[in-house]
Amino acid sequence: MGKIVRFKNPPKVISVGTVAGAKESEGRLKGYFDLCDKSDKFGKKTFEQSESEMQRLALNFALKKADMSPNRLDAIFAGDLMNQCTGSSYGLAAFSAPYFGLYGACSTAAEGLILGAMAVDSGYFDTVATVSSSHNSSAERQFRFPLEYGSQRPPTAQWTVTAAAAFVLGKSAIAGNAENEKGHSCIGEKNGVCVKITEALPGRIVDKGITDQSNMGAAMAPAAAATLYSYFKESDSSPDDFDMILTGDLGYDGHAICRDLLIGMGLDLGKGFSDCGILIYDRNTQDTHCGGSGCGCSASVMAGFVMDRFKKGEIKDVLLVGTGALMSPSSVLQGLSIAGIGHLVRLSAR
Amino acid sequence: MGKIVRFKNPPKVISVGTVAGAKESEGRLKGYFDLCDKSDKFGKKTFEQSESEMQRLALNFALKKADMSPNRLDAIFAGDLMNQCTGSSYGLAAFSAPYFGLYGACSTAAEGLILGAMAVDSGYFDTVATVSSSHNSSAERQFRFPLEYGSQRPPTAQWTVTAAAAFVLGKSAIAGNAENEKGHSCIGEKNGVCVKITEALPGRIVDKGITDQSNMGAAMAPAAAATLYSYFKESDSSPDDFDMILTGDLGYDGHAICRDLLIGMGLDLGKGFSDCGILIYDRNTQDTHCGGSGCGCSASVMAGFVMDRFKKGEIKDVLLVGTGALMSPSSVLQGLSIAGIGHLVRLSAR
Repeated sequence: MGKIVRFKNPPKVISVGTVAGAKESEGRLKGYFDLCDKSDKFGKKTFEQSESEMQRLALNFALKKADMSPNRLDAIFAGDLMNQCTGSSYGLAAFSAPYFGLYGACSTAAEGLILGAMAVDSGYFDTVATVSSSHNSSAERQFRFPLEYGSQRPPTAQWTVTAAAAFVLGKSAIAGNAENEKGHSCIGEKNGVCVKITEALPGRIVDKGITDQSNMGAAMAPAAAATLYSYFKESDSSPDDFDMILTGDLGYDGHAICRDLLIGMGLDLGKGFSDCGILIYDRNTQDTHCGGSGCGCSASVMAGFVMDRFKKGEIKDVLLVGTGALMSPSSVLQGLSIAGIGHLVRLSAR
Repeated sequence: MGKIVRFKNPPKVISVGTVAGAKESEGRLKGYFDLCDKSDKFGKKTFEQSESEMQRLALNFALKKADMSPNRLDAIFAGDLMNQCTGSSYGLAAFSAPYFGLYGACSTAAEGLILGAMAVDSGYFDTVATVSSSHNSSAERQFRFPLEYGSQRPPTAQWTVTAAAAFVLGKSAIAGNAENEKGHSCIGEKNGVCVKITEALPGRIVDKGITDQSNMGAAMAPAAAATLYSYFKESDSSPDDFDMILTGDLGYDGHAICRDLLIGMGLDLGKGFSDCGILIYDRNTQDTHCGGSGCGCSASVMAGFVMDRFKKGEIKDVLLVGTGALMSPSSVLQGLSIAGIGHLVRLSAR
């Protein structure tokens, strides 16, 4: 496994923005999004263009909350699930910032946070944004079947989340600086803290031979377990040091597999160990089978719910392992098994 | 435009690897690839799996030439044109290194070199690889029509190159160190120089309203021109300081448009200004219309031909502007215009 990246000057989370669709606005995390559109269309004619608009809106919210002009952005790191990542390229063109396109499937939010934090900590850039999204309707017709078919989903299937989220990251040297411009501060500052990205552990591709594309959680769980095991083997920290350890997004079955794999390796991550795909929907009232998935799931759970808990002072230290299934409809039709990856990011407010 | 990134400790190019297909093995740059397979299949059953195998082979060549074990890689930055970038994920899983998936269309090679160089220069990683590929047959059936249709291509169309290339980048502090391990040296060392990545200027998304997906060169030319104009406006260098200034890949028409746009802005890049899509094929004997394109085009021209010229001491300073068209077949069918981007990398052997 790679070495843990320990940021010398941990980049701070200046601001976040989230938008979501109908199902998300009725889930357990309703109220944590900046905007919900129950039509899932966001004023656009196609689902693909709606997803682009969601990215634009999410970054716009993040910039507005920080009272920051788009021309302050030294770079954008962004990605989504759509072929050729057009959710990002068309959604973010208007910001006219240097642009790095990413493809990490559902791990994109974590991948973006790692690369964005590295770019800031290394001194190349002062301020960057990371953006990611998924849209249930653009994903279903691309990865599976047209919605109009009304295909029955198996119990192991996860529900692609309709959401986008943006993080604006900045140099930590600015934190607490009285000469800091209005608003260019930090998540958590009202409580005298500042949420920063302190560590990262980029994941490796792990392929354990799962071929069922309706069971992505099982395909990604070994990659998440490998990253978490490596992290705690190398780190001075123990699971008890974290208020939340989140995978994103394995769903109910995948998360149970990941927990079992880690316990088999002698690592019990305890009560704080959950999954963004489990947190986002209400299992009792919403029929999503195994929970949420998609680039927008972990992104919006982190930017919405988790950042809110940081702001309120309820939590101090969180690990996110963004998990991605790196297959395509073609690779599945050609009989290849599904490769997974898990990128780890540590966020601390101390 | 963004600021020029000037690497403090410019990462060196330790090694490169290239593989290519039939048409490339008969083009102007035949002899510059480590391996050509005239079947275009590389021992695999499908074109998609052939493309993955090309990525694996290219990185394998680069590592072997440097006498380096894969477990020395601290990270891989990779991407391709296939939906969900499976050329990279399936091709590189075997190396078991921390993996960052990129999507920059034909700009992926340059995007990878920028991010890889930043990761090394910043001290997070000692050694990284950047890999990219394209395959004419996987691209044609995904972006346009099944090959069996025998569709007629318009004169403005470019030919997707079947090639993959890998760069291994390392800390420049190792260069010239007598205790350096065998082979972990530098392209150009036999001539007493070392090819390094000295500067970068990440591009912005530029959309000038081109909707013809058979004229990608025109769609990408304004982005390339914008990046080059910004570079020479901000830089102390003049076009005369460079032996080659290459776009990759605008093809004949797109490159002429880019040259015209720059001359209109008062910037004449002179004789050394060319395009990887122009260099790779022989216009007199090979019917590729407007020249080459695809993630593998600029990647293999740089890793093969340009690195060979560096090795021979023929050139000292090169600018590459990797250009990408960030649309998808769906975005084109939905009537959106084609957004372009141009990422600049400077390679110097001084």
